Amino acid sequence: MDVQKKRIAIDMDEVMADTVGKLLRCYNRDYDDCLTMADLRGKKLRHVAKCGLEVYRYFEDPAFLRDLDVMPDSQEVIRALQDRYEVFVASAAMEVPASFTAKFEWLREHFPFIPPSHIVFCGDKSIINADYLIDDHTYQFARFRGQGILFTAAHNVEETGYPRVDNWRQVAELFLK
Amino acid sequence: MDVQKKRIAIDMDEVMADTVGKLLRCYNRDYDDCLTMADLRGKKLRHVAKCGLEVYRYFEDPAFLRDLDVMPDSQEVIRALQDRYEVFVASAAMEVPASFTAKFEWLREHFPFIPPSHIVFCGDKSIINADYLIDDHTYQFARFRGQGILFTAAHNVEETGYPRVDNWRQVAELFLK
Repeated sequence: MDVQKKRIAIDMDEVMADTVGKLLRCYNRDYDDCLTMADLRGKKLRHVAKCGLEVYRYFEDPAFLRDLDVMPDSQEVIRALQDRYEVFVASAAMEVPASFTAKFEWLREHFPFIPPSHIVFCGDKSIINADYLIDDHTYQFARFRGQGILFTAAHNVEETGYPRVDNWRQVAELFLK
Repeated sequence: MDVQKKRIAIDMDEVMADTVGKLLRCYNRDYDDCLTMADLRGKKLRHVAKCGLEVYRYFEDPAFLRDLDVMPDSQEVIRALQDRYEVFVASAAMEVPASFTAKFEWLREHFPFIPPSHIVFCGDKSIINADYLIDDHTYQFARFRGQGILFTAAHNVEETGYPRVDNWRQVAELFLK
């Protein structure tokens, strides 16, 4: 009997891709600042950056998104998850339409074992039909039909109310033990 | 009391956008043929086109997708649906990654009342969490959790097993009466 696998949807930025790491490096270089990840604990970058909201303009450059670092252990763990779960990537790409192609190419390069049929670019993730959503933004969990799993990022360290994982090793602990 | 609206997800190609109409015109011009919609009844274009599968290469040109005609009555009916339902667009854009930006811009131009947060580019539409999916491809209904509504297109006229609508007036009849 073919038992339906449970489904895990995985956010891309700050979960699979180290978006903020590169953003910090670019910002520090261009604005002659020296912010670290520690400076971002419990805060949004826009609140500590000299340029405020302007700091997010880096996202409008497709080249910025194309060479992000892969989060440690994410490739091995996601590949292992696929044996027991149906895995989808769910990225809120509609916020930055210029990012579509760069995001897609990045995923195909670094996660070639995730088929394009299982990549979703959306806005409001309540449209995702999955059992679990691993994401760094709790606002995406509010109307999500499954269980939200909060992936730790500097901006969310003070949030409570959802199971939390700090890294991909902890994702493996949670889903594969 | 705020009652949760039911959700309708709507396919884009051949439901909101007249993709095949333009494809036929371009094919007839470039291959000196004179195929009509009637020639496509119950068939795939690739089976009747002189060039076979090559005919789908038009989709790889973003300019092709950018100026598709809007399906008759779709704008008015979708706007009316929004009063009673939560409406999402769900396009299988992952099949043609070059199409992302053109599709997004086309939607923003012709359906500006659908917010980007409610646009989804995906592959396998079983990932869509909605009560209804209006689509011209029955294979998208197989694992969809809600009710599939088949939107008539030349290629699907012989298919049975799902409620069928031939045009947007019939969508209005079904959902708004």
